[in-house]
Amino acid sequence: MSDKKNNDVLEKIVSLAKRRGFVFQSSEIYGGLNGCWDYGPLGVELLKNIKEEWWKFMTYRDDVEGLDASILMHPRVWEASGHVENFTDPMIDCKQCKSRFRLDVLADGIAPKKKFKYLEEVKSDPSFSSANFNDVAPKDEEKVNELFDSLLDNKETSNKLLAVMNCPQCGNKATFTEARQFNLMFKTFIGPVEDSGAVVFMRPETAQGIFVNFLNVQSSSRQKLPFGIAQIGKAFRNEINTKYFLFRTREFEQMEMQFFVKPADDKNWYDYWKNARMEWFFNLGMNKDKLRYHDHPQNKLAHYAKEATDIEYLFPFGWGEIEGIHNRTNFDLARHEEYSGKSLKYYDEESKEKFTPFIIETSAGASRSFMAFLVDSYREEMVNNEQRVVLGLNPKLAPVKAAVLPLVNKDGMPEFSEKLVAELRKNLRVFYDDKGAVGRRYRRQDEIGTPYSVTIDTQTLQDNSVTIRERDSMEQIRIDASKVKSYLLDATL
Amino acid sequence: MSDKKNNDVLEKIVSLAKRRGFVFQSSEIYGGLNGCWDYGPLGVELLKNIKEEWWKFMTYRDDVEGLDASILMHPRVWEASGHVENFTDPMIDCKQCKSRFRLDVLADGIAPKKKFKYLEEVKSDPSFSSANFNDVAPKDEEKVNELFDSLLDNKETSNKLLAVMNCPQCGNKATFTEARQFNLMFKTFIGPVEDSGAVVFMRPETAQGIFVNFLNVQSSSRQKLPFGIAQIGKAFRNEINTKYFLFRTREFEQMEMQFFVKPADDKNWYDYWKNARMEWFFNLGMNKDKLRYHDHPQNKLAHYAKEATDIEYLFPFGWGEIEGIHNRTNFDLARHEEYSGKSLKYYDEESKEKFTPFIIETSAGASRSFMAFLVDSYREEMVNNEQRVVLGLNPKLAPVKAAVLPLVNKDGMPEFSEKLVAELRKNLRVFYDDKGAVGRRYRRQDEIGTPYSVTIDTQTLQDNSVTIRERDSMEQIRIDASKVKSYLLDATL
Repeated sequence: MSDKKNNDVLEKIVSLAKRRGFVFQSSEIYGGLNGCWDYGPLGVELLKNIKEEWWKFMTYRDDVEGLDASILMHPRVWEASGHVENFTDPMIDCKQCKSRFRLDVLADGIAPKKKFKYLEEVKSDPSFSSANFNDVAPKDEEKVNELFDSLLDNKETSNKLLAVMNCPQCGNKATFTEARQFNLMFKTFIGPVEDSGAVVFMRPETAQGIFVNFLNVQSSSRQKLPFGIAQIGKAFRNEINTKYFLFRTREFEQMEMQFFVKPADDKNWYDYWKNARMEWFFNLGMNKDKLRYHDHPQNKLAHYAKEATDIEYLFPFGWGEIEGIHNRTNFDLARHEEYSGKSLKYYDEESKEKFTPFIIETSAGASRSFMAFLVDSYREEMVNNEQRVVLGLNPKLAPVKAAVLPLVNKDGMPEFSEKLVAELRKNLRVFYDDKGAVGRRYRRQDEIGTPYSVTIDTQTLQDNSVTIRERDSMEQIRIDASKVKSYLLDATL
Repeated sequence: MSDKKNNDVLEKIVSLAKRRGFVFQSSEIYGGLNGCWDYGPLGVELLKNIKEEWWKFMTYRDDVEGLDASILMHPRVWEASGHVENFTDPMIDCKQCKSRFRLDVLADGIAPKKKFKYLEEVKSDPSFSSANFNDVAPKDEEKVNELFDSLLDNKETSNKLLAVMNCPQCGNKATFTEARQFNLMFKTFIGPVEDSGAVVFMRPETAQGIFVNFLNVQSSSRQKLPFGIAQIGKAFRNEINTKYFLFRTREFEQMEMQFFVKPADDKNWYDYWKNARMEWFFNLGMNKDKLRYHDHPQNKLAHYAKEATDIEYLFPFGWGEIEGIHNRTNFDLARHEEYSGKSLKYYDEESKEKFTPFIIETSAGASRSFMAFLVDSYREEMVNNEQRVVLGLNPKLAPVKAAVLPLVNKDGMPEFSEKLVAELRKNLRVFYDDKGAVGRRYRRQDEIGTPYSVTIDTQTLQDNSVTIRERDSMEQIRIDASKVKSYLLDATL
């Protein structure tokens, strides 16, 4: 698909999301708050169902325990984790017009031709002697971008490059400050005094809540290695560059599991979880062609990782990470031992050894998974020369499990329907609609992914039978009303 | 019960909560973070179940929609709501030793005798002329406390009182600053610049996320008045005085529903929800004797409220609010109209009138409900001259629905059990335990509230029957293994 078409798809989905009540802009009546979104009546159900499926898959087993740690944590946690020091983006200011830019975003906005011009200006400077300008031709945009980015990434060469660049805001040359590191954690103050001793952070990831509770969970649940701790919860990052709807936001939700293993078993468990997590997306009906692994090469691994892969989904804007699987080694527990002075070692009764476990992490974005399921299930198709929009969501994920539709709004059909609704609502989220042509009512349900519509008609009042229409095939079957509930329970939970 | 006994109960529950994995201190290995708690493997299940029961009760109906708004909101929201101006506690500093105190907490820590002495010192001052000292005798502690508190509550008299009081930290007299208002919202900065234009707050309540989304939800769900919007989510208050375990914390979770009604219908719907919410606690098995309404007298109502009641639970420390039901009038929507400049009026098709709806709010604490259910279900009893501890939780709330226990760890019983466990885990959280005497295993399940234990014995291997033991009666029945799942589903979901 062309870029244009892809953007159209994302726009359509954002529009559907707002119109039908999946996702609204946060604080919209005040002009919105950048990077924050609210989940509406249907969105909250889809999100809940994704989280519930993850929770069952990950914790309904012997070797994984759940946890729900607080968002505010002791500030030393983030020193130990490395976030205070390293969780930063490089920022520059224009001294002339006072605009502020994230360095990598600034670079993204410059045309390759212009970049080549800048490179020409600096290439004779001895600092750039190790860079290979010879291979780079002005038309080879990819290589120009690559070289430019790598030179911006290096402190010494980046300052030299900045000295020849123009501010994209005011156009002046050589007005940039040196790049400074900007920490992405939101900080606040606990207690009544706003000083450095009172600084705490809104967690930028849920993982640390698991690490610091390792021994509490292990001893209270009497688990032995290998075992995992799973957690769903919000995290916050002060992103300068939010983008792509729910993809990069300032407030988001994670579904993380940390699996504690003997160091020698790390490879096996890494492979196990790498497979299991991809299976989870497959099992919930995500298009296999739009999912792939992106293994991190050894020279690009995060400081804590021995091995890492992303599960990526092909969004309309391109491939984007929706989950990461990492072999974090014993980095996290060892750091927390060092910073807290408390032992987080595990005593293995079989081998009579004490050691710091290795950790295999599966870190999925709940918000990103939400967006991927929404995008993946969206389709437009022609039925009898009319277009219908369908969210082909797995019934387990669908916000509404069934619609109950009396064919007409009279003759006792509404009364019959309401009784059925009351019975179904003991266990299922169902929607009652008695207004308008039934074809139109079906389409409204298709558009929000409701897998089944139950229609009550004249025959119902005679023989107690109803029709059940399936969303994707649009096929209808007729069954006794007394069997509707067990039919829907089997098909949607 | 005496204070001593009551404190013992709370201590026992806190200890059980930690030992069995319900609740841990946040960031415990770093000495903890005051006012924040982490939910362990069993706690997260109990909390999830409470939230799920609330969600079903509140939203599985035609006239209530769900929502999940972001924690960070546009700062104008909190100006409109009145929180920037009014959500404050009075604080004082000792100029001598630099200690800081919340004024009302400082007063709580002073013995009535001492208070009487302070009152004696100031009574001749003309500012106190309207206060009635005559009725107050030094031995009448309640009246001394009441008078003292009321004088501290008034700006003029409080400064005079502070001028004769001693600092509880350094003991010096007349060293206090005037009381200053301290805002309880946690503030942070969004974007790369830490200045006043970038200040945002962590929401101190979830309600505002509902108000600002009123029209988005109404139009996307095509609801007509009366209808409600329900939301579960975290809120944060920079409490100076955290106390009583989960009762007053800095980070907590709310379960709020705002019901939008025609102004003339407010009284009926207030009464309806007042009753419905109490029923919810009853239906989940909470002790009726330990629940009561506390209606707010007209002169003590919050600035936005026309009528208000608390549902209080009798905790070991005394009666404490676990939910509030409020008639908020049109205060909130009118304020957001004023501050946003956007109309939040509703057009009533029947009467052809446009108006700002009234709101009936039900605001429950998820964390406080968690604590109330934990406390309420805790009991110690003698069985065959042995003490057992039981959490008599409603099966719907119990973290583990059933334990599967092979009588001995051999003869094929573990294999049989594991098959059963795998089948049950498709829908239920079950626990497998094959270690130790079966009586001891029962006790461990009683202590965490598991309603059923399924035992596999020699007879099972012969005729496929198992015993199911019920937690409270300790009675056992024998049924075919094929029927265990439907038995447990019926009894626990």
